[in-house]
Amino acid sequence: MHDDIKAAIRGVPDFPKPGILFYDVTTLMKDPVAFKKTSDVLYDYAKDKGITKVAGIESRGFAFGATLAERLGAGLVLMRKPGKLPGETVSESYELEYGTDTIEMHVDAISSDDVVLLHDDLIATGGTAKAAANLIEKIGATIAQASFVIELTFLPGRAKLEQYDFRSVVQFDSE
Amino acid sequence: MHDDIKAAIRGVPDFPKPGILFYDVTTLMKDPVAFKKTSDVLYDYAKDKGITKVAGIESRGFAFGATLAERLGAGLVLMRKPGKLPGETVSESYELEYGTDTIEMHVDAISSDDVVLLHDDLIATGGTAKAAANLIEKIGATIAQASFVIELTFLPGRAKLEQYDFRSVVQFDSE
Repeated sequence: MHDDIKAAIRGVPDFPKPGILFYDVTTLMKDPVAFKKTSDVLYDYAKDKGITKVAGIESRGFAFGATLAERLGAGLVLMRKPGKLPGETVSESYELEYGTDTIEMHVDAISSDDVVLLHDDLIATGGTAKAAANLIEKIGATIAQASFVIELTFLPGRAKLEQYDFRSVVQFDSE
Repeated sequence: MHDDIKAAIRGVPDFPKPGILFYDVTTLMKDPVAFKKTSDVLYDYAKDKGITKVAGIESRGFAFGATLAERLGAGLVLMRKPGKLPGETVSESYELEYGTDTIEMHVDAISSDDVVLLHDDLIATGGTAKAAANLIEKIGATIAQASFVIELTFLPGRAKLEQYDFRSVVQFDSE
């Protein structure tokens, strides 16, 4: 389903390294029709859930994160790489194939009574999204949904977030 | 004017380095009322200009860049730091206080018949925005407007972009 949205996503071979096929959401974003339709689909998933904050993951997640926040009448919260946020932050580290990475959020960005939509453009292994979800739950807030434009179904992202209302607009099932 | 929007922006002393007062737009973004009102003001600047693409500058510029693109019925183009875009890019370097920096765009993101709104959350010295504008004009496209949420009026950003329809929602006139 959503074949028109899927068709607007470009596959770029060997990015960021040889052997990886990168699904490039920028070709979707630059297309006004596909951009609007994707925003419509994501909004349709999220409406009527009482969402008060949209947490967008750096940095492509800020784009549909913002259209969702506007349409839901919610605030937009930026989940960022370390050192980018100027105020007091909380952080969560997670394992990569080699080494670890960390995601940060302003400690006052979300409060315990917030109902949060977690959003990113793409879910692969789910490490970043799961760490972001952990940060939000540490604050005591409720995660009402985790939504993504692109899901790589040959990687275990969905399983890491199975306790949430998990949505993806389009799926790619092979590398 | 727009004192309510201005009041939602937090000043963080000594970020990213001692002596710098950082104007933090994330406190505005997380506030649903200020977020929506800022989007309204930016849209009001840009409507009726025939804009076909919104070029948002990495990474906070992707947020209101996206709400503007949606409301204008335009596509969203990501102007990024080097090495982040997977496809073929064009790039433009610019001078910093110490050294240089570079901004990139996909070569096929904008075409010569596009009418472009350039957007970022903040304009300071204007180096990044001017380089982004140069990139867009290299393609042969028209820049209909350059808009920013925050303008630091004690720095020469506006002068660097004086040939364009320059708009800022709020201004700060001292460090």
